[in-house]
Amino acid sequence: MHILDILIKKRDGYKLTKEEIDFIITEYTKGRIPDYQMSAFLMAVFFRGMDDEESTSLALSMRDSGDVFDLSDINGIKVDKHSTGGVGDKVTLVLGPLLAHHGAKFAKMSGRGLGHTGGTIDKLESIPGFNTVLGIDEFKDQVNRIGLAVVGQSGDIAPADKKIYALRDVTATVESIPLIASSIMSKKLASGADCICLDVKVGSGAFMKNMEDAEKLARLMVEIGQLAKREVTAILTNMDEPLGHKIGNGLEVLEAIETLKGNGPADLVEVTIEIGAHLLLDSKIESDFDVAKDKLRETLKNGSSLYKLKEMIEAQGGDPSVVDNPNMLYGTAKKYELKSISSGYVEKMDALSLGLAGMRLGAGREKKDDQIIHDVGLDLIKKIGDMVSKGETIAIIYHHERGLEEAKKLILDNIIVGPKRNKTVLIEKTIVNNKK
Amino acid sequence: MHILDILIKKRDGYKLTKEEIDFIITEYTKGRIPDYQMSAFLMAVFFRGMDDEESTSLALSMRDSGDVFDLSDINGIKVDKHSTGGVGDKVTLVLGPLLAHHGAKFAKMSGRGLGHTGGTIDKLESIPGFNTVLGIDEFKDQVNRIGLAVVGQSGDIAPADKKIYALRDVTATVESIPLIASSIMSKKLASGADCICLDVKVGSGAFMKNMEDAEKLARLMVEIGQLAKREVTAILTNMDEPLGHKIGNGLEVLEAIETLKGNGPADLVEVTIEIGAHLLLDSKIESDFDVAKDKLRETLKNGSSLYKLKEMIEAQGGDPSVVDNPNMLYGTAKKYELKSISSGYVEKMDALSLGLAGMRLGAGREKKDDQIIHDVGLDLIKKIGDMVSKGETIAIIYHHERGLEEAKKLILDNIIVGPKRNKTVLIEKTIVNNKK
Repeated sequence: MHILDILIKKRDGYKLTKEEIDFIITEYTKGRIPDYQMSAFLMAVFFRGMDDEESTSLALSMRDSGDVFDLSDINGIKVDKHSTGGVGDKVTLVLGPLLAHHGAKFAKMSGRGLGHTGGTIDKLESIPGFNTVLGIDEFKDQVNRIGLAVVGQSGDIAPADKKIYALRDVTATVESIPLIASSIMSKKLASGADCICLDVKVGSGAFMKNMEDAEKLARLMVEIGQLAKREVTAILTNMDEPLGHKIGNGLEVLEAIETLKGNGPADLVEVTIEIGAHLLLDSKIESDFDVAKDKLRETLKNGSSLYKLKEMIEAQGGDPSVVDNPNMLYGTAKKYELKSISSGYVEKMDALSLGLAGMRLGAGREKKDDQIIHDVGLDLIKKIGDMVSKGETIAIIYHHERGLEEAKKLILDNIIVGPKRNKTVLIEKTIVNNKK
Repeated sequence: MHILDILIKKRDGYKLTKEEIDFIITEYTKGRIPDYQMSAFLMAVFFRGMDDEESTSLALSMRDSGDVFDLSDINGIKVDKHSTGGVGDKVTLVLGPLLAHHGAKFAKMSGRGLGHTGGTIDKLESIPGFNTVLGIDEFKDQVNRIGLAVVGQSGDIAPADKKIYALRDVTATVESIPLIASSIMSKKLASGADCICLDVKVGSGAFMKNMEDAEKLARLMVEIGQLAKREVTAILTNMDEPLGHKIGNGLEVLEAIETLKGNGPADLVEVTIEIGAHLLLDSKIESDFDVAKDKLRETLKNGSSLYKLKEMIEAQGGDPSVVDNPNMLYGTAKKYELKSISSGYVEKMDALSLGLAGMRLGAGREKKDDQIIHDVGLDLIKKIGDMVSKGETIAIIYHHERGLEEAKKLILDNIIVGPKRNKTVLIEKTIVNNKK
């Protein structure tokens, strides 16, 4: 087998075999195919695409380039969720305790944030003492014991994906749906859960800017999951405005705690319940989707799953008193109340810009090695459809001076107030496995 | 300016500016853009193409990456020709003396052969003592004095093209018409002639396998020439069968000498005269195309330009007695007469396979560093349309044992004898500059 033949084959629009894809991934990871051939291959894939089988082969090849976790010694069906990355997305922090309370085994390996999107691991680290680095045995033991654990990606998960992603980033080959789908799925399949619910974000604050692409991506990931013999469901959710009100690490943990206590914002509750119901069905804990949703909604309302968050924080070395005293998560950040300069309804928000405002304050990373400031961020008092008067507070900025002026401008420029009362459709579409 | 923006622009199908193309070529040549970004760019060009202006910018950028020769101190109009590479193509060896005799200044920098195609420099080196390495002043002085010189590419011509070509070769991005056109034109424009005639070969033995691609390539090169303010004409000539009868370095010089003496094969004479007439017109030596052709034909017929070849050989240190005694070019090679195994007409020949047969004998290079054997090759006694009887010699193989059996098989498999008397159309099309 020769890389040049495979390159020509893909360039000319032919379908690659599993063996050819394995060859290119294995040899590239071992450094025996140089970057310049890989980047030409990736660009050819950008133009020619890959079908479901090719994408699955690619995902499995990348998965098998590193550690593949076997969670079979955890009792019960292991569930996992993945978000393609949005602004204010703290679903995992609510969903984990909620599902653990309902008897599911929530075993999640999570990532850090980059650019305008946050990462669950960064958020959890705003809890004093919280340890996101567990050995695989500790991880499994904790899930077995209390029903949930959320850790950073441990070990060497999909190193081929890591190497290829770094190359895509500098060769204009990021925006390819088969490459995105197989990248995500390689890591999800390596982390070993039985049932996975994918939350594909669509809109200005998301990686996928339009429904058509988002749906293609979602369908392909579900298909890869099915070919890899996992239960996978995808929902497409709106990311034109941030999820919930709060953006920033400590602030998002706070909002998650409030949600688990029964005081969550409607959109965050809705997405969490939707994903949760799919996972309860897939793990055979519930058999009716609407019943599952009702039960989850009730649990959130009466706050009866909050103790599971406390258990997780304790198990992972964190200070559980944050749960009872979440205001400590503000830290020493100063508050700035940003006033509206006009009256009307919030017609539009640009989630990307609001995420960037948070980043400028120090809540996110511009570059991989940037340090996060855990107590800064935004509290969006008004969201799309809300009425606002001139002079009324539309957002509170939690800051340490850095980036404050830039954040103010970004927020004012990107929350559009006008006469129209718009309504956001939050869950746009659900894509389920053919088997169901 | 940033390479990633340029890459995205081309990937998404937008036209690049001259500045952007200059940037990518300059920075790549200086090693400040890595191979992996350049190969992604080349693959994007493969899919998106480049228009005439972009291709011209690319050709000029690559030309300007190295030495650009100024031939203005040679008296008169300097002419040059270029062939895209065929089998048995010894046109330069006939054309140079012919045009010099008619008063043109034939200033040609030529290349070496690779694969199934031969190179003029290799052919000339089969003349004992012939020196293909001249300094630019010696080169100009010789053209001024005797009207012609054929040398290897001296100095540092289009190093950007050299570097990019090496990368294209290993990234499946050779077969792109804008990249081929600008690669050829970067070198032609650097070597400084005023008028250039391009011989674009079409058919099995050529780089361009079909008329459509060949015509696109020819038109684009003529357009680049025009935008770069040169007189450029292109002719499309058939390369389904080799040009002339002889393939191999010494053998091709021999056939060129025979042609200059008036005993040339019809196809070689026709192509030489066609190119020659274009160049005499472009250099204002003649004003009527048909008159020019008649004069050139007459000169070839009566052998009156042969002395110019002798002058060139003498000027470049070679032994001019080969002109009077061309059989010395056979060297010590043994002859093998290959007999036809059937009777009929030669219906088809595969020029590529016949070129490869020559290469197996040692007439060409498989890899860049291979040594050429100058006295081996083929003499095709029969060509398309010729009648042949079973047992009659169809080709003579000049060999030193090496590759003989393989060559025999290649020849017998690729000269198809049958009942149909086909006729080859040699000159398929002429593409002239819009200005004419």
